[in-house]
Amino acid sequence: MMNESHLAGLEVGYDVPALPGMRYDEIQTPCLVLDLDALERNIRKMGDYARAHNMRHRAHGKMHKSVDVLLLQQELGGAVGVCCQKVSEAEVFARAGVKDILVSNQVRDPGKINRLARLPMLGARIIVCVDDVTNVADLSRAAVAHGTTIECFIEVDCGAGRCGITSAPAAVEIAKAVAAAPGLKFSGLQAYQGAMQHMDSYEDRKAKLDLAIALVKDIASALTDEGLKPELVSGGGTGSYYFESNSGIYNELQCGSYAFMDADYGRIRDESGTRIDHGEWENALFILTSVMSHAKANKAICDAGLKAQSVDSGLPFIYGRDDVKYVKCSDEHGVIDDPDGVLKINEKLRLVPGHCDPTCNVHDWYVGVRDGRVETVWPISARGKAY
Amino acid sequence: MMNESHLAGLEVGYDVPALPGMRYDEIQTPCLVLDLDALERNIRKMGDYARAHNMRHRAHGKMHKSVDVLLLQQELGGAVGVCCQKVSEAEVFARAGVKDILVSNQVRDPGKINRLARLPMLGARIIVCVDDVTNVADLSRAAVAHGTTIECFIEVDCGAGRCGITSAPAAVEIAKAVAAAPGLKFSGLQAYQGAMQHMDSYEDRKAKLDLAIALVKDIASALTDEGLKPELVSGGGTGSYYFESNSGIYNELQCGSYAFMDADYGRIRDESGTRIDHGEWENALFILTSVMSHAKANKAICDAGLKAQSVDSGLPFIYGRDDVKYVKCSDEHGVIDDPDGVLKINEKLRLVPGHCDPTCNVHDWYVGVRDGRVETVWPISARGKAY
Repeated sequence: MMNESHLAGLEVGYDVPALPGMRYDEIQTPCLVLDLDALERNIRKMGDYARAHNMRHRAHGKMHKSVDVLLLQQELGGAVGVCCQKVSEAEVFARAGVKDILVSNQVRDPGKINRLARLPMLGARIIVCVDDVTNVADLSRAAVAHGTTIECFIEVDCGAGRCGITSAPAAVEIAKAVAAAPGLKFSGLQAYQGAMQHMDSYEDRKAKLDLAIALVKDIASALTDEGLKPELVSGGGTGSYYFESNSGIYNELQCGSYAFMDADYGRIRDESGTRIDHGEWENALFILTSVMSHAKANKAICDAGLKAQSVDSGLPFIYGRDDVKYVKCSDEHGVIDDPDGVLKINEKLRLVPGHCDPTCNVHDWYVGVRDGRVETVWPISARGKAY
Repeated sequence: MMNESHLAGLEVGYDVPALPGMRYDEIQTPCLVLDLDALERNIRKMGDYARAHNMRHRAHGKMHKSVDVLLLQQELGGAVGVCCQKVSEAEVFARAGVKDILVSNQVRDPGKINRLARLPMLGARIIVCVDDVTNVADLSRAAVAHGTTIECFIEVDCGAGRCGITSAPAAVEIAKAVAAAPGLKFSGLQAYQGAMQHMDSYEDRKAKLDLAIALVKDIASALTDEGLKPELVSGGGTGSYYFESNSGIYNELQCGSYAFMDADYGRIRDESGTRIDHGEWENALFILTSVMSHAKANKAICDAGLKAQSVDSGLPFIYGRDDVKYVKCSDEHGVIDDPDGVLKINEKLRLVPGHCDPTCNVHDWYVGVRDGRVETVWPISARGKAY
């Protein structure tokens, strides 16, 4: 993925925020910067963990939306493939040659089902989630029409209260329908508990996961009794993967945010009570911003506002600084409290975004930095692919 | 701007959410939809207002980030050009042939100043804001190096507390430095009161604008006394343009959101106490979304979450429906309360986003609809141009 031919002819500013070889201070801000050393350490660490626990790791591509980051997760972290949330994301990963792709979501629209059914022709294993038996016939018809196989996970609602079934009989009904449908294959369970990932306390998260694991065991057992043993039981995020890995029932993880980290995840605590960004994972993703006005003595204005991030999970924090604080965000500006007036015009600051997923989704490029120089510029290949 | 050659060869799904001629139900969601009739009425109405009040209207391109929408504002609404917030946006509009471009923001980074100074070579008048006398020499040097002229507005902080000077002596000092600097021209005042635009009450907004107008008059008078009469006094948004237009000192408006509207602006009241989206302006921008799971009887899940919008100013509302309500937003999903279970799988809903500017910034395309059919698909040409 270090092939830089995709940058040929691009102009700094109009097309890209930086080019390989640039010094840190030449990068056009605001943009996303990856600390490549930290990123690689995070990726290797999760890979080692999964291997030691006999877990497959299907990296969540919805977080970074980048083929290059996924290839790194496969190469350095042993990831078996990708999960993503939209058919358009799956199209990006399949065209890039990724071989094992889970759309961890329902696909109901006829146009989208048709697009999904074509993807195995690119050489990828394609899995999709089902939570409604009426979806089965539509998926089957499209797979048959294209001569492909769509694999299906039954989605279990593990407590998020969104998509997914909540009982063993519902799972058995859908799995039977899938198993009987031409062009479809029943392959397992989607059992991701999204709602507890961001709870600060380890014990609170464990209590929620214990409930989810009990439900998943119950459903897997009912399916096995019907001769429909799930090949894969998939779930687990950055705030929970150790619970799934030690559950005795899950065999596949879906962690995403561990690779980049963000302010909201950073605040949660590990078993010893330590913030997970103070040991378990390193901040590898930053919004690089510059001070561009200081017309008031105690207030600096930087160039990263709402167009450079999502603030749904709170404001960013300024990495490595406790003398200045990002306190307000408008469309194009961030307001920074600078009580002692220490910030200079054009000074660059690294912001840790509140929430990495929707923040990555507003940018076109990752600027990969090592030893103070731009080493690589990666397109956020599935950015904006929501449909 | 109805030339559709930019769509040649694009594939629905992977590249674009829709193509011209499609029926409403074939559009791949989530995506942004423009009601072209409503959009054109809004644009004509603002144009008529500005003309009747002898005001130039410089449409704010930061809102829609689209060359096509701007061309419509120029053609149907008599807009004199564009303002935008970033050099990268100005690059997009200048390359598209727009002739009068204001970067309504400070430009301090040497790389950005160099890029800005090259833009007049594309045939555009380029204006930038200055709020610090130390910026003047940098701008001048770049303009001289490229043999161009950069026009400068002194930015007045009208109450937002971000960028801008707050006193007449500060304005005079900078304007004199600009007037004396080779390659620069002092052209007026940037005096946009951003902080009051979203206050619900007309009287509260008026009180804030009265203060701003008094300050701007004081500064303009001090400049005139020094032989530096501002050619342009520019400001005014969707929540205030009538105040600036009747101030006797402003001669240029910068309205943006009036064209599309959003939920946050919609809530503010006109002089008679009526919500401005119930008369003054029409909702022309929608996030089109589809119901994609209904595994719980009283709760529908739609496909528009945080990746399809910004929720910094609150959740979207569902247009034309009071029987169902969008109540929660996660990365990829919206949760809709559907107490009577009326929503069907694949049913399409139109969401009015909380805040149009950062919502437009996550999408790549506007799908223009008229009479139930897709008429046009416009690229959001300056999307992601933040640097």
